[in-house]
This record gives sequence, C-alpha cells and structure tokens, in this order.
Amino acid sequence: MKTQPYRPARPVCILQAGSVTGQKEKQGPLGKCFDLSGDDRFGKETWEKAESEMQRLAVGIALRKAGLRTDEIDALFAGDLINQCTASSYGLLSYRIPFLGLFGACSTCAEGLLMAAIGLGCPAGAMERAVAVTSSHFCSAERQFRFPLEYGGQRPPTAQWTVTGSGAFVLSAVKRDIVRLSEEYVPVIEEVMPGCIVDRGVTDANNMGAAMAPSAADTLERYFKGSGHTPDSFDLIATGDLGREGTAILRDLLEVKGIDITKHHVDCGCMIFSETESDTHAGGSGCGCSAVVLAADLLPNLRRGVLRDILFVGTGALMNPLSLNQGQPIPGIAHLIRIRAVPKREFSHKITEEISHADAP
Amino acid sequence: MKTQPYRPARPVCILQAGSVTGQKEKQGPLGKCFDLSGDDRFGKETWEKAESEMQRLAVGIALRKAGLRTDEIDALFAGDLINQCTASSYGLLSYRIPFLGLFGACSTCAEGLLMAAIGLGCPAGAMERAVAVTSSHFCSAERQFRFPLEYGGQRPPTAQWTVTGSGAFVLSAVKRDIVRLSEEYVPVIEEVMPGCIVDRGVTDANNMGAAMAPSAADTLERYFKGSGHTPDSFDLIATGDLGREGTAILRDLLEVKGIDITKHHVDCGCMIFSETESDTHAGGSGCGCSAVVLAADLLPNLRRGVLRDILFVGTGALMNPLSLNQGQPIPGIAHLIRIRAVPKREFSHKITEEISHADAP
Repeated sequence: MKTQPYRPARPVCILQAGSVTGQKEKQGPLGKCFDLSGDDRFGKETWEKAESEMQRLAVGIALRKAGLRTDEIDALFAGDLINQCTASSYGLLSYRIPFLGLFGACSTCAEGLLMAAIGLGCPAGAMERAVAVTSSHFCSAERQFRFPLEYGGQRPPTAQWTVTGSGAFVLSAVKRDIVRLSEEYVPVIEEVMPGCIVDRGVTDANNMGAAMAPSAADTLERYFKGSGHTPDSFDLIATGDLGREGTAILRDLLEVKGIDITKHHVDCGCMIFSETESDTHAGGSGCGCSAVVLAADLLPNLRRGVLRDILFVGTGALMNPLSLNQGQPIPGIAHLIRIRAVPKREFSHKITEEISHADAP
Repeated sequence: MKTQPYRPARPVCILQAGSVTGQKEKQGPLGKCFDLSGDDRFGKETWEKAESEMQRLAVGIALRKAGLRTDEIDALFAGDLINQCTASSYGLLSYRIPFLGLFGACSTCAEGLLMAAIGLGCPAGAMERAVAVTSSHFCSAERQFRFPLEYGGQRPPTAQWTVTGSGAFVLSAVKRDIVRLSEEYVPVIEEVMPGCIVDRGVTDANNMGAAMAPSAADTLERYFKGSGHTPDSFDLIATGDLGREGTAILRDLLEVKGIDITKHHVDCGCMIFSETESDTHAGGSGCGCSAVVLAADLLPNLRRGVLRDILFVGTGALMNPLSLNQGQPIPGIAHLIRIRAVPKREFSHKITEEISHADAP
C-alpha cells in the first residue's frame, strides 16, 4: 500500500457546508453554530424519514450557500448508519445528481471527503464539483443497534450518544468557484489517507470508543511516518467520535509509539455535548457527529484563519448487531483528511500561475 | 452533472479476477467457469461468516493470479448487502490494505470498478493498484430481506434468487503489470458513468427487476447521449441483475426513447441460472451475481478477444425491509463501466509512446 498520503494534483476546496441537527445538539456547546435545528421529526412520521429529510436539508443549505445548482454537481458521495444506507438513498432522491453510496460507519464524513478529493484532485479528472453528505439519528440508531427506545435500556458510562444530525459539504476544483468566495481563507484538502480495518478484539457494543481508537492510532501513526509531519505541525487533530473513553485510549496507544498528540487533539464526540450538562456519558457518536462539528465549527474557524492546518480523522466501527450475536469482534476504521486554510490572496496567485502555465506554448 | 462519461487519463487494466460461488451456481450454465465453488458454508458456522469467507477467498485468488502481494495494493473497494456491509469488513480484515467501504446494493461490483477507475485513472493519482470486491449469499439475504429460510415462504414468478458468490478484481495502472500479462488482449476500463437514483414508485420487494430497470434505462440513455455511441458500437451490453422481468422492462423503456439494445443486451441474472432447470423464477440477483459473471465469463471472453468492447451496467435497489414497511418505494441505481479488450501489441506500443513522451524534454 502507499506509505505516503495522497495529495490532490490540483486544489480541492471545501466551498461551503450545511449542518442540520436535532434539539439535544442545539442545546449543546456548539448549538448556536448549526444552520438548522429541528424537533427530531422534521415534519415526518418516522425517525428514518426524518433522518433522510435532514440529509436533504443539509445538501440544500450547502448548495444554496455555495450558489450552485444541482445540475452543476458531478457526484454525490453519501452514506449513513441505517441498514442499506437508506437515509441517503431516500433523502437524496429529489436531487438528480450521480450518486455514489458509501459505507464507512461513523467515518463516512471523512470517507466522502476523501473520495471527493480523489475524484476532483486530478486535472481533467472525473469530476469538477461534488457533494459529500452523511447523517445519523439517535432514535433510528438506538432501535436498530441497541434497544427499542420504549424499552428504556440503561446506558453504561462508556456508552456514547448517537448525534441527530446531518452535515453536507460542497467541494470544488473550479477556479471561479474558489475565487468568488468572500472569506479571507479557503479550506483546501491538502492530503488524504484512507484507513485499514483494525481489530483488537473489542466486543462491547457499549464501548465503541475502545473499538475505534486502535484504528485512529493506526492511521495517525502511518500518516506521521509517511508524511514526515509531527503532531506539532498542526493546529488541531480532530478525531470523529471516540468520546472520552476512546480519546484516552487513542492518546495512550500513540504515546507508547512515541507520538504525543495531547496538546493538539480534540474529539468531535467530546465537543458536541457538554460533559456535565448533556447527560450523554462518554460523548457523542454517529456519522452525523463529526460531520456537523466539521461543518459548523472547524470549517468556519479555518475560513476565519483561526485554524490554519488541521487533521480531521473520521472513525468508524464496522459491525452490526447480528455479527456481535455471532461472537465477532468490532473492527474499527479511520480515514484521515488534512485541511489547510490557504490565504485567498496566495491562492489566487497560485491559480493565476497555473493558468499562465497552462496557457504557455 | 457531467453529461459525458469519465475516461481515465491513463489505462486502467483489470489484471485478474477471482470468482467463488455456492453449489447452485456451480450447477448452472456457467458452473465450470468459476474458480472455486463450495458448500454454502465454506467451513464456517453461519451464513454471514461464510459470505465473509467467500470475499476473503475471492480476493486471495485474484491476487494470486495477478502475482501481487497485499502490500502492493493501495486500496480495497468493497461492499455487500448485509446490514452495515459486514461481509466485507470481516471478510477483508486479514488483508492489511486501506479499505474504502461502498454501498451500491447489487450495483456494488460496478461501483467498485468505477471508484477504482477514478482512483487509478490519473497519472500521479491517488493509487496505482486497487482491488474491487463484493459478495452476496442466498441464505444471509433471504433471512435479512424476506423470510427465515425455515419458514419456506413461497416465491412469486417475478422473484429472483440471490446468488451465493463473490467476485474480486485486481486493477492496475502500472505498466509492468500490464506488459507481463500472458493473454493476447488486455481488458481496460475505457469509460465510466455513475448513475442517478431513479424512483418510479415500484413497491413490490418480489419484483426487484421492475424497480431497477428504470435506473438502467436512465444511465444507458445518458451514456449514449453523452458519448455519441449507439448500442451497435458494442459487442455486448450486460446489465447486472434485472432478471427476465426487468430485462423486458428495460428493453421496452429504451425502445420508447428510440434506443434498441435487444441485439446486444444480456443480463447476468439471466445468464447465471438456467431458466428451465435452476428453478429460480425470474433469474439471479445480488451483488455476487454480476460480479461472478463478469469475473468468470465476460472478462475471460474479453481476454481471448471473443468480446472486444462491452458495457457492464451494475444495477441496484436502494431499499431495506423497514423502508418498505414504512410505505416507501424502491429506488434503483445503475453504474456503467465500458470495458475494452485492447490488443496487447497495440497496448505495449501505447505504453512505449507514453514513456518516450514523458521522457521528452
């Protein structure tokens, strides 16, 4: 396998993002940052339909912010936690955009951005603009993965709370899209590194953080080795949804390898809910968790230049209830995206250079 | 969206394939072509574990044929029908290769090839070699999507039979891999076109062909319009698993648009089982259906030059049992891959040209 991360051959920019959440997320520390927060039903009669509606809304918001029509988008990269990823297929049915379905469990946000970077990152490549979107819903996830909500099952301290939310991202490699952005900094996908499946024998479905932490450690270790960077090269290393339990395990696993990320590491699962007030035990989880935190908190901070260079590491647990009943462990996966805030001035300069280079005889 | 298909900027070759099936498939018309056929359990205690084992075996066979080690592969594109795609995550756990999970229902074989073509198709691209793999298993699919097998549910004439099988494909853009192939012709992915989700209101889970045919018609119509080709440009137009019911609907839908594919159209779901002897009603289905037919029949015919230019159209139904219970329709999707048998002599010539071009000052 490639030991170095993939660096797109032309700038792939995250133009805009849309974030849609439920009420509990709105009441959390990032509540004010989300574009739209509904009542967990979003006008639909089932939670599954509500989750689809969140995806539809998130994509609509992101496209509107980017000033793009659906027919200007070459591909939708989408996936979710519901069996057969139906939150995506029904939610995005009304958009007539070529659809590429993903399953990366809670790492889907990062997987979608990674695939989009591959598709857009090559001049004369497969596509010019793409949308990556994912979602999760507490109620649809609980009844599918654990217990019917009515059962009122108790949650151990290591359990995480599935975020009700959807994050959508409009990506572009089209120069005029990037040049017309109003912010001072442009979030550009600088590098991506897909993760390997890692199994360390964890079988506790109420401790997903422990199941996913080894894969995050594996991808980060490979990345630092392959890229030559150190944790200090970055303003922030944001994992997707390890929660408090998984965060401690990840830091320990990397410390043993001589890699200290503690100064820069945050976890979206710890950021989205309040440890003292949200009553979510080890923190948030689900595809929607890292997606809405990236969309509503990290990207705006990159656009403002508060963050200049970050690693975003989506984490996922690749199991289902049947596989656990059959005695299988919970393998994890972690996909890494490096996002850099490129000053628009420097960026426009680069574009101009490229144009003149291309025009040269 | 792009109206033209994506054409890789450098040759992406399907080096080798591996096909693993159950007994019913072995007894069908293509039975002698499969690399390995087992007893539906493959030495495991559950059907789900057997399906994972088929994927592991198929990838192993394909890699062995290609003479490549796992550490020479940059990415695995994999997915299946089991909830949360666990046939792939457990089946491929033992391969330490970066893993990109897909969900395209029965179109997953085509989706994996499409993604690999995008990843490999760009010089200095994201990857040099990739494996695409998918699977389905009659027993794991029946109990998940329809009834427990023990129930002995009756099957209407429009019902299809989920293929027990896994097909794996080793793709490469590395010149020395291609040059050392022993066959006279090299199967090259010439163009790809991702499909849009298409919903025509079909709600009968026992008539997947009807649900998927409109999406195949949509993708083929877009392809012929965008590429300028006609059905007569191709030796074969192979859809994934429309079965006899869906095949008739697809031909009708295209005829209305003035496109006549009848002379060249075959369906993998009709090819894999005998209409008179297999007792599978409308034919085969499942991710494994198109994957093993491509691996064991179409690709060998391309390598021998019997087929020179084909369209392979993976078809999928994007639903789950819960969405049907909630009154949702069954949307379909179809991803198109054009595979051309390039004479190795012409191909080597092209490679030489490319090398000298790259070496030019």
